[in-house]
Amino acid sequence: MDAGQTYDVVVLGAGSTGENVADVVVRGGLTAVLVEAELVGGECSYWACMPSKALLRGSEAIAAARAVDGAAQAVTGAQDVAATLARRDAFTHDWDDSSQARWVRGAGIDLVRGTGRLVGERRVVVTDGEGRTTRLTARHAVAVCTGSEAAVPPIEGLADVDPWTPREATSAKAAPGRLLVVGGGYVGCEMATAWQALGAEVTLLHRGERLLEDMEPEAGDAVAAALRERGVDVRLDTDVTTARRDGTEAVLGTGDGEVRGDEVLVAVGRRARTGDIGIDSAGLTPGEYLDVDDSLQVRGLPWLYGVGDVNGRRQLTHMGKYQARQAGAAIVARVRGEQVSLADWSPFVATADRGATPSVVFTDPQVASVGLTRAQARQSGVAHRVVEYPLGSVAGAALYADGYTGTAVALVDPDREVLIGVTFVGPAVADLLHAATIAVVGEVPIARLWHAVPAYPTTSEIWLRLLETWRG
Amino acid sequence: MDAGQTYDVVVLGAGSTGENVADVVVRGGLTAVLVEAELVGGECSYWACMPSKALLRGSEAIAAARAVDGAAQAVTGAQDVAATLARRDAFTHDWDDSSQARWVRGAGIDLVRGTGRLVGERRVVVTDGEGRTTRLTARHAVAVCTGSEAAVPPIEGLADVDPWTPREATSAKAAPGRLLVVGGGYVGCEMATAWQALGAEVTLLHRGERLLEDMEPEAGDAVAAALRERGVDVRLDTDVTTARRDGTEAVLGTGDGEVRGDEVLVAVGRRARTGDIGIDSAGLTPGEYLDVDDSLQVRGLPWLYGVGDVNGRRQLTHMGKYQARQAGAAIVARVRGEQVSLADWSPFVATADRGATPSVVFTDPQVASVGLTRAQARQSGVAHRVVEYPLGSVAGAALYADGYTGTAVALVDPDREVLIGVTFVGPAVADLLHAATIAVVGEVPIARLWHAVPAYPTTSEIWLRLLETWRG
Repeated sequence: MDAGQTYDVVVLGAGSTGENVADVVVRGGLTAVLVEAELVGGECSYWACMPSKALLRGSEAIAAARAVDGAAQAVTGAQDVAATLARRDAFTHDWDDSSQARWVRGAGIDLVRGTGRLVGERRVVVTDGEGRTTRLTARHAVAVCTGSEAAVPPIEGLADVDPWTPREATSAKAAPGRLLVVGGGYVGCEMATAWQALGAEVTLLHRGERLLEDMEPEAGDAVAAALRERGVDVRLDTDVTTARRDGTEAVLGTGDGEVRGDEVLVAVGRRARTGDIGIDSAGLTPGEYLDVDDSLQVRGLPWLYGVGDVNGRRQLTHMGKYQARQAGAAIVARVRGEQVSLADWSPFVATADRGATPSVVFTDPQVASVGLTRAQARQSGVAHRVVEYPLGSVAGAALYADGYTGTAVALVDPDREVLIGVTFVGPAVADLLHAATIAVVGEVPIARLWHAVPAYPTTSEIWLRLLETWRG
Repeated sequence: MDAGQTYDVVVLGAGSTGENVADVVVRGGLTAVLVEAELVGGECSYWACMPSKALLRGSEAIAAARAVDGAAQAVTGAQDVAATLARRDAFTHDWDDSSQARWVRGAGIDLVRGTGRLVGERRVVVTDGEGRTTRLTARHAVAVCTGSEAAVPPIEGLADVDPWTPREATSAKAAPGRLLVVGGGYVGCEMATAWQALGAEVTLLHRGERLLEDMEPEAGDAVAAALRERGVDVRLDTDVTTARRDGTEAVLGTGDGEVRGDEVLVAVGRRARTGDIGIDSAGLTPGEYLDVDDSLQVRGLPWLYGVGDVNGRRQLTHMGKYQARQAGAAIVARVRGEQVSLADWSPFVATADRGATPSVVFTDPQVASVGLTRAQARQSGVAHRVVEYPLGSVAGAALYADGYTGTAVALVDPDREVLIGVTFVGPAVADLLHAATIAVVGEVPIARLWHAVPAYPTTSEIWLRLLETWRG
């Protein structure tokens, strides 16, 4: 073992969250090292956001053209699956992280490849693939940004069918003949959409009674209807209890009998990647999420931060990067001995994790949501009034696609008269969302929102309709 | 002449602005009548926003699919021009306003068809096509919402070529063989884009050195480049001085010689439609814009309002409707004897006309803009810092289209640290705009905007890039 190196900040995990923590602290004048056993850039770049959206975009663009009479007649061919997969490969740089590693070094951040494990307060040992070790000491903080990994549900025989995780689903080199998707959350819905369009025969098995259960019910209903229309066999209330291989076939057992396919994608959630990073040396329990405050500092361990998926607050790339910016700012300020306010919306806290988290499901229709849903508001006892309007009745949406159907749902805090949650369901709603995010985060009063005039005829005119509906 | 009828409010002009004034005052408990000589619904529904966007959408959707490798291969045919024109006709209801007239009556508003003219304080006479007259008296207010019409530039011989105005350009039943467009504002640019895509050979003649001169320079430059790439002959710094017919050909004379085509579209701006509505009876000058305060009340004439294009403040459908809501609220409040605050952002004033007006040009690339441009800020001496970022470097944009190019320009008030102007140029940016509009109107501080996290990977991530660029 070498004598080791000392940095102001040691960051475990060079996904987008870890990269951002390191970048922020280096910009703040500190030194930082990133430790990564896999690809620099992490899940988002290689096995999640980027490849999944690249797989989805082609069929979305074709569907959009087909939905406009006059343009539809130009779409006489079929999507080129090989070209779509090649485009996906281009977005993942063929799973080669050299450009990201260059960015890291260009940003003045050191990079050590290998598995980092805590071995005591502010001390990390990195072990590379050949068993060589590097000792790292953090003068000020260790930021754990090791993320999450696919959860494996307790299905008898599941290991024997060698199921896809989201990683294999986003990186597969060809469409399977028949794909069985277990789980109707956003990953299951997106991958069912993508692979059906790329030629697979898809069966989606979901134990709940509705897809996308964490979102407004309009979302899951619309996505289920669209998947079925495209030929996906969507089975709700369906628990998968057994799995086995029968020759090359994968066979899943459910209460309603067996389902057969060529590949099985299991997409039933995530678990913290804290099993093998030595957090027991800090008195924490391996495998558990890190319990952090709003500055992402682990409670009781001022030198340790848990940022991104690993803390279980909000498992989304953009929220991990947001937390990274806030945690990085907090680390820099604390090193400088400056005051770190933990008040809501201060530069050091991830307030938006609670009540202002945006998310987009890139199915077709898309689902874009920020803040609370009706159910969440009810469950947490937050006073609210609901305002709904059909998106297809907005001129901009009707121009976008013939027969456009969609929904906007907004929750208003009736006392402060500010928005506390907005969901859009419909084709191409992803970029409608940020207006809602700014309105929610900015706590812009309804009275002022009347002066924020949507340009006509854009789909954003939904804002005027929601305000008119609110006024009654 | 009949004995006449009395209403609380008489509205001249049943375009979208007039409809909204009437609707708001009726909802406020007043009675109202709309006077309209042409189609109920006005320019926007029949000869502007709706038909122009319907003409543009098909080729936009095809271009979007062609820009995605894998999807592009599906687009092996051509746009169906007849189907596109039929779709446009459906959006204009074949220039039949019966559904809008039904809406008016359903909203409890009376409708009198004919040309309304002021004949004294709160008194109007309507003359229909057969010369029959109806007297109308307004108990409280007359709202002039007669809009604007195409300006005719002083080009020798222009009348002889029987040029298209924007009305003919949006309602033509077939693409001309060769279309000469005079004027490089948003109408000229949109119609050049539309008709070139629908088969015309288009020459665009613009006297200025850049298209879309009121917008950021990146806008006009990008639109000119795109038009040229599609085969439009864009001639800048080109003054049209003469016009004549040579057989069926239209011939325009410029400093650089003659240009020949089959039709000529003149799109060089608008003028107030106040020439023949009797405003001289109120001591005002026919043909001039109505000079109004922020509640849209004509200065010096408390019973008269000028709402929408007719006041020359902001000639955009959505701003006319906005003014209508504000003016309608002011009329109702004044009738009730309630306090009408003229303070910025009150419910009775059109504050957004100054500094917070959104507009979208539906060319390809699109231009979406709110608030001040660099030049406007400079000219009015407003302190500002400029933040720019290339849209194509945002992951969501790169996923949207291969080789996406675009620009975002934001102006920040350096003292208050709020946005005072934002322009997006690029494919499909129209619905990015409303986030900027809410940020500008809501005066949301930059420090808070950091908590408004854009969902990844959407094009809205441009917001994070702008913030990072601002921070430096």
